[in-house]
Order: sequence, then C-alpha cells, then structure tokens
Amino acid sequence: MIETITGKKDFIESLRGKKATFMLALSTSKTIEVEGITQAGIPDFIHLTPTLDAEFVCTGEVRSIPNLAQTPKGVPTPALLTRATHLLHPFGNIELLDLGMDTKAKVEYFKEHSFNITPSSRIDKGANINAMELFEKGVEFGKEYKCKDDYILLAESVPSGTTTAEATALSLGYSVEGYFSSSFKDVPNDVKKQTISDALKRVEGRDDLFDIVGSVSDNMLIFNAGFILGSTYSKTPIVLCGGTQMASLLLLVNSIVNYMGGELDSKHIALCTTKWVATDENSNIKALLEMLDFPINAYYANFDFSSSLHPALKLYDEGEAKEGVGAGGALMYGLLNGLSEDNIVKQVEKFLS
Amino acid sequence: MIETITGKKDFIESLRGKKATFMLALSTSKTIEVEGITQAGIPDFIHLTPTLDAEFVCTGEVRSIPNLAQTPKGVPTPALLTRATHLLHPFGNIELLDLGMDTKAKVEYFKEHSFNITPSSRIDKGANINAMELFEKGVEFGKEYKCKDDYILLAESVPSGTTTAEATALSLGYSVEGYFSSSFKDVPNDVKKQTISDALKRVEGRDDLFDIVGSVSDNMLIFNAGFILGSTYSKTPIVLCGGTQMASLLLLVNSIVNYMGGELDSKHIALCTTKWVATDENSNIKALLEMLDFPINAYYANFDFSSSLHPALKLYDEGEAKEGVGAGGALMYGLLNGLSEDNIVKQVEKFLS
Repeated sequence: MIETITGKKDFIESLRGKKATFMLALSTSKTIEVEGITQAGIPDFIHLTPTLDAEFVCTGEVRSIPNLAQTPKGVPTPALLTRATHLLHPFGNIELLDLGMDTKAKVEYFKEHSFNITPSSRIDKGANINAMELFEKGVEFGKEYKCKDDYILLAESVPSGTTTAEATALSLGYSVEGYFSSSFKDVPNDVKKQTISDALKRVEGRDDLFDIVGSVSDNMLIFNAGFILGSTYSKTPIVLCGGTQMASLLLLVNSIVNYMGGELDSKHIALCTTKWVATDENSNIKALLEMLDFPINAYYANFDFSSSLHPALKLYDEGEAKEGVGAGGALMYGLLNGLSEDNIVKQVEKFLS
Repeated sequence: MIETITGKKDFIESLRGKKATFMLALSTSKTIEVEGITQAGIPDFIHLTPTLDAEFVCTGEVRSIPNLAQTPKGVPTPALLTRATHLLHPFGNIELLDLGMDTKAKVEYFKEHSFNITPSSRIDKGANINAMELFEKGVEFGKEYKCKDDYILLAESVPSGTTTAEATALSLGYSVEGYFSSSFKDVPNDVKKQTISDALKRVEGRDDLFDIVGSVSDNMLIFNAGFILGSTYSKTPIVLCGGTQMASLLLLVNSIVNYMGGELDSKHIALCTTKWVATDENSNIKALLEMLDFPINAYYANFDFSSSLHPALKLYDEGEAKEGVGAGGALMYGLLNGLSEDNIVKQVEKFLS
C-alpha cells in the first residue's frame, strides 16, 4: 500500500499506528499574477487558495469566498483527499503555519503559528524576500516547536508553488530540466518557462545563496528549510507531504548545509507523495531526490481512483490534480492506520454527491 | 470473541480501545541443535527464526536469509497473524528485546533493547545461563521501562521454546506431565522427552533455583520473570502473549516469589493465547495456570480459519502452528479494537495470494 521511492521502508513502518500532527504551511506568492501560470484554485480567487484549503481541511467548509456559486464544478482539489483521511482516521492535531497569506483562514480553535510574514512578490520581477531573516525564523520555530503527537506531516498550499520550486532548484545550480511537475495535466509550459527564465536572469552572477533565493523562491520553501534544520535538535520525525515542491525544499536544505559548511543528520526526515506524482511521466521526483548529498527515505501512497465511477475523480487518475495540501502524506497516514483504499475512495465520493 | 480461560473478563474488557506496545522477546537456545526437536522455522535457518520473525512483524519483509527461495511453501507461521493485526489496527509501538539472538534483525527505526545476552546452550548438555544475573537484568528493565502506550503485549520468538519451557516447569517441581504443547501437530515427543529428561538429570539434587533454571531453561523465561517482577513498580498492564511457554514463565515467577519468600500482586498481569492452544487436546494450559499461587486472568482469542478456503490456512485449524510471535495476544488486540474475524482472515489471505 505504501511504496518506496528512495531509501528503505523502515522509517515509514516505524510510524505505523502512530499519531501525526498535520501542519499546513500556507503562503501566497504574487507569481500567481503572471497570466496563465496556475490553474490551482478558483479563477479570480487564486490568491485565496491557501486560505480556502486551510478552512476546508480544518472544518470541511470553504468560508472566504463571497459567493460560493462561482466555484467551477468538477475541478478536483487534493484537499478532498486530506479531509477524507482526517474524517476516517483523524490527525492528532491540525496546525497552520501562516507564511504570508493574503487573507487569514476563517477558523477558530485551531493553532495558527504567525511570524509577521507577508506574501512574496512575483519572481520574474524579484520575489523581494528577506531570505536570511525568514530562514532564521524557521530555524527558531524548529528549535522551539514541541510536537504534541508522534510525528509531523508537513504539508503546503502555495499557488504557483511548482514554478517557484523549479526556479529555486535551478538558481541553486541543480540540473533539473524536465524533472518538475505542475499540479495540472496541461502544464502551461511556455508561461512557466518564461517566468522562471526571467527570474533566473535577475540573479545571474550573484553568489550569496540567501540573496539568490530571496529573489526567485517562495516563503514556504525558505522558512521550512530553516524549520527542518532547526528540528534536528528535537529529532521529531517530519514527513514532507508533497511532490516536486517538497523535493525542491530538500534541495534548498542541501544547498544551505553545503553553503554553511555543515552536515545534516537526515534520519528523522522523509518525504511522501501521491502515486500520481511518483508515476508522472512529465516529471521525475526520484531524480530530484538522488541529487541530495544526504540519504532520504521517500515514499508514495499507492492509491488511485480506478475503483470509482465518479467522473470528477477520474480527473485525478488522468493527472488533473496530482498533489498538494498534503494529499500524499495524508493518504499514507490513513493507510498506515488501517484504512483501505476503498474506505477513502468512498469518503471522497461522499463529498461530491 | 474473547474467551476466558481463568479469572474474569474485566481485565481484558478494561483494555478495550486502548493502545498497546508490542514487545517481542527474541532468543535462541542451542537446544535447536538437537536433531528433530523443532519444526518452527525454515530448515537450516532455525537459529534465525527470532531474527526473521522480528523483521517480518516490523516491516513485512524477511531480510536475513540469503536465499528466500529455500522457504518451504505452505508452512504457516503465526507471525502472519501478528502482522495482519498490525496492518489493520496498528500497535502503538513495536519494540524488540534482544535476549540472545544469533543475528540481529535487519531493521532500523524500531526500538531494540539490548543487554549483552548471548544465545544459551542446549539444555541436555547444560544451558550455561547465569540465571541470577539475567533475572536481575530483567528486574532492572522492568523497573526502568516506561511504556509509551497503555499496556504491553509481551510476545516471544524462541525456537525449541516449548521444550525449554516444559523442562523449566518440571525442574521447579510442578507436575505438568502431558500439559505442554508443541508448536506443531506431530509433536516429536520422543526426542523432546529425551532432551528434557537429559536436562533434568543434570540438575538432580541441586536446590538453588537460579542454578537449576540456569541449566534447563532459556533466556526468554528467566529475563522476563525478572521483567514481570520489576514491572510491579509501575503497574503497567502486561499481557503475556503465548501458550504453554508463557504459562511456564508464570510458573517460574511463582517459584521465584516463593523461593524469595515474597508475594506477587498479579493484578496487572494476564495471559492471552490462541484458540488452537486453548482447545488443544495434547496440552492443558488451564491446568498449568491453576498451579499458580496467585490469581491470573487468562484468555484466548476466539479466532480460527474455518471461514477461509485457503489450504495453507487450514493447517492452522489442523494444529500445525498453534501459537508464537504473540499471535494470540495480537488477535485479541485486533478484536478488542473493532476488527472482525473476517477482516483478519482476509488480510492473512492477502499475504498468501
């Protein structure tokens, strides 16, 4: 039910039956304003995607759009998978990391960590992030954070996040051409390529790592690179829930460790994604992970909708919504706790009926 | 679904819905080198049985045999039942007790407790165990161990363990003739009887309890007698998962308490085994338990494979693999947490398909 991408299955087997905190990292990059760059979310409300994802995962409701009728029917969001798992085998806690949201999620009673971070600017004009300061906020948080469960599922909702992730990896000198996926099947390659190319041109010749990623990356990646490094003090297991974005986060961690001349004990870190990412022919997460200088355990949840007759769910299997909002890690969490594929499929179908 | 052998059902009912740590006590006794003494395990690799059982329960994989093709087809191992339960309703933690393994299990991330214990020698030539020292290691562990779950399922994998268990009980003066079972249907009675008789002859006339069991017993029994007595400080409930071996452990505890002139509050200890042991006509676990000077709650999981058509699983019902690797306790844990007999049968069938 859980397949290994890199490393061995022991890490994930040792978490079987254990409780996880689902930590959702939320940020908006104004890169979404590039015409045609993303289809993740609801047109005209892309900047609210992290807000709506947080609301839906926590409460099952989408609260921050003025007129729900504008929601286009039939567009699947991976948040459905996360919420379905949470209903069937709940996370121990859901916590939100506000890493620069346009609008706070309208939820009460859920722990929200705030750090005075504002949305980053569009990378083709310079993201304008104080990367060192942001990274240090992440380190500090990682050092101080006390997980109330056995481990952390670190998930993200960042519209246009695959673009900023690819730009980040390229800016750090990794040869990742063709290894990055988009959330959607018909990847808007030209717009994306142009945006990344414009972003990279702006940092040509620079050699300060934080200066570079402050211009081409996003808040989620930079903060969480710090969070991961800070967490090596507590050794609380952290599963990065996501595909090529989370692989890019690891590449950033790798570069920072090398840049600072340190070493990372990566034993407590792993990555988990969906089958749609792991078997995607337009990207290559395994190749990305093999560029790391430290060993990493990476897995995918062997889950799809082939048993469902619902047309909207077929879109997942056709590659319309491959990953996001921690879907892969959430599925893994369900499967590690006795849920069957069939349980989860039926729950997701209920959302759409 | 759970039947009472001795005592009342209250103990086990009070654990319904609670999380357990599955603690697997592993040791090898060179008694396995007596020709024909055991069929538990894979021929030529009997000494690795505890290693392979630990690997399989933790990861679902058998890692320490050089050539898996040598596994004889169709020989059931009770570890299948333990692993099936863990997949359907996971234990909170799996921890390994290395009580003298030939080879360490090839698993990472799982807690392994080590005490510098080496495999014991064959009892017909003297087991050569420093029983007092080993017992004290167990007491110390029991005093210091902090269970991360609500209770402990204490299981064992000790090849030829029914032989050493029977020798132990006899050496302590209990009249247990005909009460001990073997793992397998065609019990090799002559070899077993001869081995036990040879072992007992060696200690005739001795009166130091630790001296006696150090010659005729095994590491699992002696260490865990200490563990149980040490655990009376924390009162963490301990369910001994096994049949006549675990009954023999209780007889050893009983003798030690009497020998030391103490008293045992046995309220937090219970035993749980399989239906195949509880209804076995060639042994009598109830009679063994009734020899104890303290009251004991003992149960069996009312589970069999009568609903399955799989020929390998029929062998369990025919008495080919009655107990071991905590099967009875694991089944009970599943049944106490909402699993049905049918759930478990289907999961075990998946392993064999």
